Amino acid sequence: MPLNPQRALADLKELRSLTSDDNGAQRIAWTDTWLRARDWYAKKLAELPVEHHYDTAGNNWATLKGESEKCLQIGGHLDSVPNGGWLDGCLDVLAGLEVLRRFASEFNGRPPVTIRLVDWADEEGARFGRSLLGSSAFAGTHSISADRARTDRDGIKLEDALRRCGVEIDRFPEAAHEQKDAAAYLELHIEQGPVLEHLGLPLGVVLGTKGVERHNITFHGQEAHSGSTPMNARRDALAAAAKLALEIRNIAKKHPDAVCTMGSVKTFPGIVTAVVGRCEATLDQRDLDPQILAQMFREAQEASRRFAEEEKCTVEWSRIWNIEPIAFHPHLVALCDESIREVSGKSHKMPSGPLHDAAEVSRAGIPTVMLFVQSLRGISHNKIEDTREDHLELAVTALDRLASKTVSWILSNG
Amino acid sequence: MPLNPQRALADLKELRSLTSDDNGAQRIAWTDTWLRARDWYAKKLAELPVEHHYDTAGNNWATLKGESEKCLQIGGHLDSVPNGGWLDGCLDVLAGLEVLRRFASEFNGRPPVTIRLVDWADEEGARFGRSLLGSSAFAGTHSISADRARTDRDGIKLEDALRRCGVEIDRFPEAAHEQKDAAAYLELHIEQGPVLEHLGLPLGVVLGTKGVERHNITFHGQEAHSGSTPMNARRDALAAAAKLALEIRNIAKKHPDAVCTMGSVKTFPGIVTAVVGRCEATLDQRDLDPQILAQMFREAQEASRRFAEEEKCTVEWSRIWNIEPIAFHPHLVALCDESIREVSGKSHKMPSGPLHDAAEVSRAGIPTVMLFVQSLRGISHNKIEDTREDHLELAVTALDRLASKTVSWILSNG
Repeated sequence: MPLNPQRALADLKELRSLTSDDNGAQRIAWTDTWLRARDWYAKKLAELPVEHHYDTAGNNWATLKGESEKCLQIGGHLDSVPNGGWLDGCLDVLAGLEVLRRFASEFNGRPPVTIRLVDWADEEGARFGRSLLGSSAFAGTHSISADRARTDRDGIKLEDALRRCGVEIDRFPEAAHEQKDAAAYLELHIEQGPVLEHLGLPLGVVLGTKGVERHNITFHGQEAHSGSTPMNARRDALAAAAKLALEIRNIAKKHPDAVCTMGSVKTFPGIVTAVVGRCEATLDQRDLDPQILAQMFREAQEASRRFAEEEKCTVEWSRIWNIEPIAFHPHLVALCDESIREVSGKSHKMPSGPLHDAAEVSRAGIPTVMLFVQSLRGISHNKIEDTREDHLELAVTALDRLASKTVSWILSNG
Repeated sequence: MPLNPQRALADLKELRSLTSDDNGAQRIAWTDTWLRARDWYAKKLAELPVEHHYDTAGNNWATLKGESEKCLQIGGHLDSVPNGGWLDGCLDVLAGLEVLRRFASEFNGRPPVTIRLVDWADEEGARFGRSLLGSSAFAGTHSISADRARTDRDGIKLEDALRRCGVEIDRFPEAAHEQKDAAAYLELHIEQGPVLEHLGLPLGVVLGTKGVERHNITFHGQEAHSGSTPMNARRDALAAAAKLALEIRNIAKKHPDAVCTMGSVKTFPGIVTAVVGRCEATLDQRDLDPQILAQMFREAQEASRRFAEEEKCTVEWSRIWNIEPIAFHPHLVALCDESIREVSGKSHKMPSGPLHDAAEVSRAGIPTVMLFVQSLRGISHNKIEDTREDHLELAVTALDRLASKTVSWILSNG
């Protein structure tokens, strides 16, 4: 049975009809709809000669034993954001499933190396605000104490929501056992941005995931009556934040792939008749080069202090989260580039702005690469997220070709 | 019994202890605390030879009959915002009460013209969002149908809250009968801004109330992933709003007394990892000159369209509310200036940015003027609102002197 990319598409559509409503995909991790998706997926796996189990962090492993115990891992995630798209995460799993079928068929159930397909638990962090949950347990980078007390909007604790799904947070570290014999990791994902569409290319090689600096910035001025406070007597916290909102764009534009985003601004008291006394903003900065990332962070801090002074305000920074840039494996990047060129003629190398489970796998020291398929209009995390079907088929084919090349590379490494 | 400004201060402190808590004044109109303030005030009035009644809009009138039916009105408001200051509104009433005492005493209960002291109902609009409620009924500018359906935070209808206090909104228009024989209106108020403090002056003459243009402005861009969307592919609604937040200051600064304020900014989706797709802002613009106000409004609209275009966004405006500038009576302005100079040596003429009941009285065609007393730190609508006690005493004295001069002017007008 040869690779059948259209079967992967049919699987994606079947999953969509099972787990979406009028507002989009609803496979939020640790919810009933997500469990339904996993049950559906388990039935698909049951048709193949694979061993299937969940690890102690809820990651979902299908293993096709090979001649060698050395193992090629392919991964994705069935979970989605609320009102999400039909491709984000599950394309990776269902393309991987098709590749697994091809290996099982071509090698009569016993390929030269072991092939493992993983559906990571809670990539999105949509419910508890902690993304890459399962893959960070696998990588051994997860901190139980920091996450145990997280709650969702209804006040339900992360710990309790996981227990309901049979997962004990205290046993998360055991998920690192799944690293055993892992020789390479591959992940296919939709781009979730506009770059490939602008270039007119279906597929791209991902060089790595950008490092992220994510901060809360609060400007403190003086609340004052909008009618009685002359312009030159104001300490307007919004004005300082507005200057920074514009300046971060200049900071980013010095570097070809860097991005800086102010995604949230909150004004206090936030009424039409008062000068803003306090303005809370968020900043998200990303680049693949750690030095550029550090420079951008420093420049944003300096600019914020300058603007605070100009507006007779003060400014406070508090880090929400950060992660270093993660570069993927150079030889796998080359194999991925080659696979894409063979399948669609032309390739493009690019960093990933969004984080992916691949970043955690790479942190665990496992040679890793990702490939991107074009996203229409660059839109994701939304029900209108879409990709041309011919591009999806090319993506499945390219992943399969990359998997074969990677198996050869694993074997050649002895 | 001569004028005793210290008695007005003692009254203010008595009222504060009766109607404030740890967070400040709680005399919100149509609440029990407000009714308690009015009962306390009624007992003070009962010591004087005055007729006392509530009109059909809940305004609280004390009338000292004079030789002439022509009447000098002095006004203020006992109602406060929640967690308000001890002076806003009630200084006017209790200074007026002291002036009324002086007239009653000096003329043996029968001054040359009738003196009326009014405690307007619901100047602040704190509970139902409709300020100048009682004075607009008096002026005949109130629109019953627009206000009948207003509700407070608990869903209680304005109409029902008023009925509980014995006021029927359908009878509001009858309050205009109180205009009869009104020859002049005076109001003393704390400045609620920093101008007099900066000038080192206790008192100022108010030239009129600034006109106000108050608008919601919404920029529509494109929500996008903060990691995957290159800087040059963004349609960032916050960037357009930030440019406007800064530009309105240039628009205002062309004119000496103009103010423009962006008091509220809301970002959607408003999360750290998304470029802002929609940004809702408010704009409040004020000036005493209607042409300047119109120019500033036009310039802000033009700027918003320019910034929207620069950021590949669109922009929508919707008016929240507006009012024309209201200039006070030139002869009363001159008398007020004279009174202040006699009492404290030096005067200053200034427009009022905040609105006051005096604006509604002036709209009814009654010659009107206000005087301001310095506010410490320019802060109001807050429990830390304060004014030096010697300044408060000067204010009571200046109001009294102005009242005498105004009585003479009324008599000289035949």
